[in-house]
Amino acid sequence: MSYHILDERSVADYLRALPAVMDRFSKGAELDAKEVGDGNLNLVFIVSNRFSPAEKVVVKQAVPYLRIAGEGWPLSRHRMRFESQALLLHNRLVPGLAPAVFYVDDEMSVVVMEWLGRHEILRKRLIAREVFPHLGDHLSTFLAETLFRTSDCYLSAAEKKSLQSAYINTELCKITEDFVFTNPYMTSPENRWNHEIDAQAKDLRANKHLKLAILEMKELFMCNSQALVHGDLHTGSIMVNQEQTRVLDPEFAFLGPMGFDVGAVLANLATSYCSHFVHTADAGERNAYQEYLIRTMKGVWEGFAMKFEALWSTNNTGSLCPDPYWQFPSGSQAFAEFRFRYLRAVLRDTAGMGGCKMMRRVLGIAHVAEFESIADPVRRAQPERMALRVGSRWVQERESFKGVDDLIGVLLEETSSPTQG
Amino acid sequence: MSYHILDERSVADYLRALPAVMDRFSKGAELDAKEVGDGNLNLVFIVSNRFSPAEKVVVKQAVPYLRIAGEGWPLSRHRMRFESQALLLHNRLVPGLAPAVFYVDDEMSVVVMEWLGRHEILRKRLIAREVFPHLGDHLSTFLAETLFRTSDCYLSAAEKKSLQSAYINTELCKITEDFVFTNPYMTSPENRWNHEIDAQAKDLRANKHLKLAILEMKELFMCNSQALVHGDLHTGSIMVNQEQTRVLDPEFAFLGPMGFDVGAVLANLATSYCSHFVHTADAGERNAYQEYLIRTMKGVWEGFAMKFEALWSTNNTGSLCPDPYWQFPSGSQAFAEFRFRYLRAVLRDTAGMGGCKMMRRVLGIAHVAEFESIADPVRRAQPERMALRVGSRWVQERESFKGVDDLIGVLLEETSSPTQG
Repeated sequence: MSYHILDERSVADYLRALPAVMDRFSKGAELDAKEVGDGNLNLVFIVSNRFSPAEKVVVKQAVPYLRIAGEGWPLSRHRMRFESQALLLHNRLVPGLAPAVFYVDDEMSVVVMEWLGRHEILRKRLIAREVFPHLGDHLSTFLAETLFRTSDCYLSAAEKKSLQSAYINTELCKITEDFVFTNPYMTSPENRWNHEIDAQAKDLRANKHLKLAILEMKELFMCNSQALVHGDLHTGSIMVNQEQTRVLDPEFAFLGPMGFDVGAVLANLATSYCSHFVHTADAGERNAYQEYLIRTMKGVWEGFAMKFEALWSTNNTGSLCPDPYWQFPSGSQAFAEFRFRYLRAVLRDTAGMGGCKMMRRVLGIAHVAEFESIADPVRRAQPERMALRVGSRWVQERESFKGVDDLIGVLLEETSSPTQG
Repeated sequence: MSYHILDERSVADYLRALPAVMDRFSKGAELDAKEVGDGNLNLVFIVSNRFSPAEKVVVKQAVPYLRIAGEGWPLSRHRMRFESQALLLHNRLVPGLAPAVFYVDDEMSVVVMEWLGRHEILRKRLIAREVFPHLGDHLSTFLAETLFRTSDCYLSAAEKKSLQSAYINTELCKITEDFVFTNPYMTSPENRWNHEIDAQAKDLRANKHLKLAILEMKELFMCNSQALVHGDLHTGSIMVNQEQTRVLDPEFAFLGPMGFDVGAVLANLATSYCSHFVHTADAGERNAYQEYLIRTMKGVWEGFAMKFEALWSTNNTGSLCPDPYWQFPSGSQAFAEFRFRYLRAVLRDTAGMGGCKMMRRVLGIAHVAEFESIADPVRRAQPERMALRVGSRWVQERESFKGVDDLIGVLLEETSSPTQG
């Protein structure tokens, strides 16, 4: 079907012609659609069966402009191809950790997927101090499986190149290059920040050592095609309930450094940690929840590293270092050492990438709800300053980090006297 | 024209229909063709005007198999697309330093280019101790211009991605991954080496530290898309005379680390250096020529670094670090420091990549004429052992290198007592 923009009426007609979608509904279903997209980029419809409203699917369609800015900011709708092919890959690699996909239509820039009515956005639930006991386990599995199985540790050279050619995601990479790695640290019209932290913003934008370190991370982001990364793995791209975790919205997917995804998760947990100095007045409650966040950071990194190591040592099928390369006395120790060094390098990238992500959420165009929901700018400045200090140290000290405890140590140090906020 | 394999008869008919080619000949030319390809991959015809034999062009056509192995080893003829588009780019970026291209036919996997009858292959002339006074200057210009202008220092993000998508050179990258970075250092049926160096080969293939370092270079080769590299820049891909230098055969072109090209040049000059302990018996003559080779190595690196730095500081148009990023007190010093660090990292990659290239020419499938032309295996073993020692140290010690003098220092040290060879 040639491209046209769907609306609440036409989306139902569109779905009725798709058996793979109608199979999700009882026989004789009448479809009602409601547009609910609050994002910046896409139309999102929830389509339900009038006779059995619990039967629902989600229809996501890209429009050929940046929705938040209107038709004056064109953005190719072909970005939906990156999202749908990444979702299909995640369905295959980590079923249950991404929304189930029922139908993909590249012509229409449409993907039809599972309705996540029993799940909520993780970022909001972290503000509300909800504990998700499986979160670290689920996210570390998502990271280990998706990153390992799209890297040269697992894929043949031809498979990797074919992945690379399918994920040259020019437009959305450029958004990240600008809004995560460049503009927040210089004068740029779209930047906005709390004027209570004017002094810190100014200092940071003139900190030569920090800016050189950020640029090293940008270069890595632009030039390192280590694995297929999600590319936007913040806590707003994760939906959860007590049993399940779903990672969504992989439209930024491209071949990049693994640390960009792992760092996004850790940075967002650290941001939440900082925010609770304001959100949670009761010290006991605050400590308990912050300990949970730290445990989850540890669980994400250590789970990721352990699962990645286990996958690699038992599935060394990739073209990076075929088994015969290790056939010499002490070869298996050498391979173990290579895997160890590889993961230590991912940790350092994680710190560097995560640090940029923390800072840009305070200084750049896109902010986070855990800070924005603090109405008083004086109070909001406290966790914002913490996030800047932690992010800045993560980027600059990354080469010295040997484990996730080093990242957590910086977070604890920089938040230990909240009054200095 | 749909693809068919040309022969000495049909190539003349083929050219007659191409005005862009016939313009190179006098009016009324009669074309005679001779197949002269001694390479492994392609047919090469020299086509001349019977009435004025100095009027010649070269026609290069890819066949859909690896020529050296026959039709049983299929290799997509589309590799010619990488060569022809890289040649056209080099014609634009460094006219005079690549053969002039007259016609490209992707359907036929053909490129028609300048006949280099007044030029000879550099590798052979280095064996003959010929001095080329402009070589370092020409090669450093080629490297600086082609690498800078295809990097994120110069290109917009969209231009870089479009280059990336045009140069996903799966098959030829795989050849390099296997034959430069993997197989020579393990048991692999196509490896061959001088049995006089059995002990060194065995030690090297079991040297854990070296093998980990080589693998770091392989990972960089596979994952770092810094610039469009030539990809096979040894002294057999360079044709010279006293005035001119032409870089040819860029069929391995892809987005990779700059050090892979710079390292290829330095490694081949170092290999030549080692070979003269056998080729040149007279100590005075040998010293003089080896000093020329060292001067050329210095000239290549220092010329490259100086020209790259000059290009960058005056053409910072790329998306890596736009000028506003540097607008803060001491910003211009910070930018200068970033360029300095960037080039130091290229030097380290140069040493690592060059080191692998030296070793693989002794241990792997493809050897070099400066060694192979030494018939006596005992005498040949001397420069071969030197090349292994130098290459091994370049790879392992690269992180400590601050300038090309460090690479040259290792070369001098490891060749200072030729009897240990």
